[in-house]
Amino acid sequence: MAQIEKKKGILDRLDAGEVVIGDGGYVMALERRGYVKAGHWTTEAAVEHPEAVRQLHREFLRAGANVMETFTFYSSDEKLNISGNIANVTGQQINEAACDIAREVANEGDALVAGAVSQTPCYVNNKNENEVKAIVKKQMDVFVKKNVDFLIAEFFEHVEEAEWAVQVLKTSGKPVAATLCIAPQGDRHGVPPGDCAVRLVKAGAQIVGVNCHLDPMCAVKTVKLMKEGLEAAHLKAHLMIQPLGFHTPECNHRGYISLPEFPFALEARAMNRWDMQKYAREAYNAGIRYIGGCCGFEPYHIRALAEELAPERGFLPPASEKHGMWGNALANHHKPWIKERATREYWENLRPASGRPLCPSMAIPAE
Amino acid sequence: MAQIEKKKGILDRLDAGEVVIGDGGYVMALERRGYVKAGHWTTEAAVEHPEAVRQLHREFLRAGANVMETFTFYSSDEKLNISGNIANVTGQQINEAACDIAREVANEGDALVAGAVSQTPCYVNNKNENEVKAIVKKQMDVFVKKNVDFLIAEFFEHVEEAEWAVQVLKTSGKPVAATLCIAPQGDRHGVPPGDCAVRLVKAGAQIVGVNCHLDPMCAVKTVKLMKEGLEAAHLKAHLMIQPLGFHTPECNHRGYISLPEFPFALEARAMNRWDMQKYAREAYNAGIRYIGGCCGFEPYHIRALAEELAPERGFLPPASEKHGMWGNALANHHKPWIKERATREYWENLRPASGRPLCPSMAIPAE
Amino acid sequence: MAQIEKKKGILDRLDAGEVVIGDGGYVMALERRGYVKAGHWTTEAAVEHPEAVRQLHREFLRAGANVMETFTFYSSDEKLNISGNIANVTGQQINEAACDIAREVANEGDALVAGAVSQTPCYVNNKNENEVKAIVKKQMDVFVKKNVDFLIAEFFEHVEEAEWAVQVLKTSGKPVAATLCIAPQGDRHGVPPGDCAVRLVKAGAQIVGVNCHLDPMCAVKTVKLMKEGLEAAHLKAHLMIQPLGFHTPECNHRGYISLPEFPFALEARAMNRWDMQKYAREAYNAGIRYIGGCCGFEPYHIRALAEELAPERGFLPPASEKHGMWGNALANHHKPWIKERATREYWENLRPASGRPLCPSMAIPAE
Amino acid sequence: MAQIEKKKGILDRLDAGEVVIGDGGYVMALERRGYVKAGHWTTEAAVEHPEAVRQLHREFLRAGANVMETFTFYSSDEKLNISGNIANVTGQQINEAACDIAREVANEGDALVAGAVSQTPCYVNNKNENEVKAIVKKQMDVFVKKNVDFLIAEFFEHVEEAEWAVQVLKTSGKPVAATLCIAPQGDRHGVPPGDCAVRLVKAGAQIVGVNCHLDPMCAVKTVKLMKEGLEAAHLKAHLMIQPLGFHTPECNHRGYISLPEFPFALEARAMNRWDMQKYAREAYNAGIRYIGGCCGFEPYHIRALAEELAPERGFLPPASEKHGMWGNALANHHKPWIKERATREYWENLRPASGRPLCPSMAIPAE
Repeated sequence: MAQIEKKKGILDRLDAGEVVIGDGGYVMALERRGYVKAGHWTTEAAVEHPEAVRQLHREFLRAGANVMETFTFYSSDEKLNISGNIANVTGQQINEAACDIAREVANEGDALVAGAVSQTPCYVNNKNENEVKAIVKKQMDVFVKKNVDFLIAEFFEHVEEAEWAVQVLKTSGKPVAATLCIAPQGDRHGVPPGDCAVRLVKAGAQIVGVNCHLDPMCAVKTVKLMKEGLEAAHLKAHLMIQPLGFHTPECNHRGYISLPEFPFALEARAMNRWDMQKYAREAYNAGIRYIGGCCGFEPYHIRALAEELAPERGFLPPASEKHGMWGNALANHHKPWIKERATREYWENLRPASGRPLCPSMAIPAE
Repeated sequence: MAQIEKKKGILDRLDAGEVVIGDGGYVMALERRGYVKAGHWTTEAAVEHPEAVRQLHREFLRAGANVMETFTFYSSDEKLNISGNIANVTGQQINEAACDIAREVANEGDALVAGAVSQTPCYVNNKNENEVKAIVKKQMDVFVKKNVDFLIAEFFEHVEEAEWAVQVLKTSGKPVAATLCIAPQGDRHGVPPGDCAVRLVKAGAQIVGVNCHLDPMCAVKTVKLMKEGLEAAHLKAHLMIQPLGFHTPECNHRGYISLPEFPFALEARAMNRWDMQKYAREAYNAGIRYIGGCCGFEPYHIRALAEELAPERGFLPPASEKHGMWGNALANHHKPWIKERATREYWENLRPASGRPLCPSMAIPAE
Repeated sequence: MAQIEKKKGILDRLDAGEVVIGDGGYVMALERRGYVKAGHWTTEAAVEHPEAVRQLHREFLRAGANVMETFTFYSSDEKLNISGNIANVTGQQINEAACDIAREVANEGDALVAGAVSQTPCYVNNKNENEVKAIVKKQMDVFVKKNVDFLIAEFFEHVEEAEWAVQVLKTSGKPVAATLCIAPQGDRHGVPPGDCAVRLVKAGAQIVGVNCHLDPMCAVKTVKLMKEGLEAAHLKAHLMIQPLGFHTPECNHRGYISLPEFPFALEARAMNRWDMQKYAREAYNAGIRYIGGCCGFEPYHIRALAEELAPERGFLPPASEKHGMWGNALANHHKPWIKERATREYWENLRPASGRPLCPSMAIPAE
Repeated sequence: MAQIEKKKGILDRLDAGEVVIGDGGYVMALERRGYVKAGHWTTEAAVEHPEAVRQLHREFLRAGANVMETFTFYSSDEKLNISGNIANVTGQQINEAACDIAREVANEGDALVAGAVSQTPCYVNNKNENEVKAIVKKQMDVFVKKNVDFLIAEFFEHVEEAEWAVQVLKTSGKPVAATLCIAPQGDRHGVPPGDCAVRLVKAGAQIVGVNCHLDPMCAVKTVKLMKEGLEAAHLKAHLMIQPLGFHTPECNHRGYISLPEFPFALEARAMNRWDMQKYAREAYNAGIRYIGGCCGFEPYHIRALAEELAPERGFLPPASEKHGMWGNALANHHKPWIKERATREYWENLRPASGRPLCPSMAIPAE
């Protein structure tokens, strides 16, 4: 696909009512591919194994993503040191490499580059506003230098820290999105989602929502509460959602980290493509227009979002060349019982078995 | 990693009692990455998107695989035509491109290239031996020209067709492995696994076993029956196993194709890394030394095999730099309940929940 | 056991801080014994098959129940006619026979007789206060004539109707208990449990709580809300609970009637004796002192309540002569793995399997 | 129902091709009612609480049972002593009382009385044929004195001990049935079901089959193997089945005793009435004509057998006056979603939820 001369910015797209498909989760997908260490979740692979990061970006692009988030999760020097900095690279190196990779792939299609910052370990330790802001600024400076298209403050458990991050990111002059990893119960200090949204918008975010920690059904519910909070405060902002790709019906306010299966036995909870189509529809119906994923989302999950919303968007993503809608590539199968699976009705009504008769369907979250 | 000057061949390794780690399943992994069409399962991506195929090979290599199977499943002109040949490429083009990619990545580490042929649609239609053999020969000619290290005849449901394939492959002078996708009940004509193994060895295979269709527990059982058959016939051969990465306790002789979840809702059945370690140990204890995977195996599953058998092999795979054995990277986690998960005991005893309270644990297979 | 000369009344017991063990559900237990028609749930068996009703009363008495509720559920002429009055008996006949049976068995131990009235079909049809009150009065007149020890208005979905019933029952001069079959969400008009409790006490009930419709965990939660409501209103009343003997974690405000398994496939949800001990402890800890059961409670479930609260009560029920606490009768079993089950730890931690791999763990309630 | 002057004997019925409905399990049902001690499973309640035993007999009779088995399980002096003889009664007293109760209730309908003997603890201890036979004879002498209609040797794990019992019972001149509590794998010495059946018939049994230990699906399978064994040996006998009322899909040759839920947490495995109708049909189709139940069978389960086979038998049991076939009593329910449940299709296709999301669907049997 040829490079698009001048791409429409994120706010132009959302203001025009377009659906923006986000990308999926990088750290967990690359952990399974062998490039990220679970427990650390740092992104030194941007420097060490750029081909692996690039390939995953490309797969999300093919799947229909309009945004390439830089692979910069937890990539401050502070966090790298806590995790032992096994690769001996600086945050600056990672952030620069990640920007270059994201831009290279974004140029292969109609995608924007978003520079992403996330919560800092120092916030929970000392709540030092200056320290937090300095860490955010350090990452942002690279994003500005590399001229990303917009910025995302994501994976914040406390709205206060997210506000600080937004305040820093606003100084760049670029559009700012902010997503919290919270449940309908509110942030970790008990601030309800509606209040969180109001505070983030007042801090300067033009796009607000949630990411990670909980499954799509729960995340849509939280964003709805954010929307109600904004309406009650007569504020306007675009809504964004990037939930887990795992079923977490029993999660409490802590999210999936509290599940006994985190992080090495979540397989049985993985959502399938039909679950994702249902999620995309519910998010859309809730008025959310920036719809993506986080941990657990593989490229085909993002494709499912793009396919579900193809009627609204007017086109299918590139990777749909390798996918029949609702299983229609099975229509010519020589086995009759497979042939019968080439329908929407079949897949929408299927209750998939786990193949694990010794396992329960739900767990007790920690605490 | 520098290229190894002169690698030890597959038979030398097995004769020496080494454990050979196989790679995982390409078509299903690449389907989820957006490069293969489910229902067709053809491999034109070797020509269209070589970077995607190369990256997956590389991930299996990093995970510890000693073999790079060419991405040539179902890639005969016959099968491409049945599937509509959506990419307009010839079998010859695919097979050549796939060999080049496999060799390129194999050269990055200690891996061999195996040229792979599989069952032909024409066998079930007319059982014409000449036609089947001609199709196999056409693929093999490319493998010989590209000088692969050995050959695999895999995914055969009927031992008779596999025998024909082995007879053709033997003419190459290269080592030949043969795996059937059968259950303990035997092949689709009811030939028991022990008899199947005897026939394959008599046809010329030096390595025999099973691949795909059933989960590791079932596959180990089938290979054990093969071993017993060979022993009873006073024949010798190396044993090989490349099962599904899905739990399929209820499968009948048809395998997972008969499950209602095939192929678009198998997520809940996916095995985790600890399941894989258990499988590797059981396969090893059964005397199998070529141990890999098929559909459902992602790179971290292969890594789990290599990690479980590291004591026997004497080394860890490259991707273990990004993995703590038995979750030990969690030992410094700041959340105490996560810290407690840094033990073998925790993960071995966990019965992971599916997060799907509306779903059953087992399904009724078709037929 | 010889008849007790003069038994302590219900209020004397509760005022003294004693635990009163209620009986279990009659209609569902007798449906399974062949004497009640599901769908009708009328109690003509009191006239037709008194020996069956007497035996069930006796089993609850042996299990430790301090109250024999008259077998008079839904036994108004109005409801009998709606159900076709298949037995051709009058409400008066049923109510009289039920009182006689309950008294006969109560005299065999330390139990009181409670005359029970329940919701009327006419309430939902026309909300005619006079009509409802007339039906209640007709039943009550029998109870007064037969000199029951106290009265219970139970299984009301609307607090308004329950208030009317209490107002009528108060005219008898006997102690009055009132239980609603509501969820924490409140009654069917949305009146919260706290408000319901206040209204029932103001109407004259000395004992208030919930019965039927939801499982013990949910029921305890509802009674706690009632308690909070009473405390906020500076009212005093004794608390009572008679929940389902089925696990209903997914129930909405309608209760188990909305579950797809109602009423003929609830078996898999049946609680065991250890579940019941846990329930008894939680109810006690919540300050509830009249603790019994409803549909799904068999005699051994009531015994489990009495056994759990034996330390507080100072004695075991008669039927404990045929029961070892926490499985201790297994301690001498000749099979070692059965022997190991003779501990509290074993049974408290067991997660019992359903033996139904094709079935889900939860259902979607109607509406 | 008036007493039948002269009832048709068990062999006359079976020879005429009639379906004989057996009764259900007494010890487990009476354990739950508070009259039998689990772990001991002795039947002193026949002396202590005859009204409770009588009532359960009557419920099975109303449900359609044509046989009243004497409540004499494990009621030898030997077993009573091992269990501590908590009631201080002799085996003779129990056996006499049990015969009187069974006869009294049998006279209320069209039922025969069967005197039942079961395995002896001394068999596994010393295999002393004389001792075993003496114990059996002692019980049989009471049955002869009380003039039961026929005799059953049941719950034998070793065919050898069952043969000895049959040899003794034959001396009475009464018809003899013999049932083993074995799996399709055979008896505890590995004798296959077909051989077991042959040996029992050669020992003198006119009716052979299985009881207890495994669920109906498994039990039907075992009886089919018995039938095949008899046919191969050109022997003739009537077939009988009295399986568990619990789902035990994972049971090994030891039966449900090896399940972790035995005996105090089996609730979730309880079969419902529709499961029972399916079982009755399968047993009938397998050529079995004496069809009843064992542990876990409540009266309504027996009624379900009689209802399923009503077309063949030409009549419904008395308790069907309180039961609508396939839920038809719900047809006039005022709630529309309950009304829809008044069909066979609804109940046959329902996959009932357990309400236990923390529990698995299957367990690992001991050993």
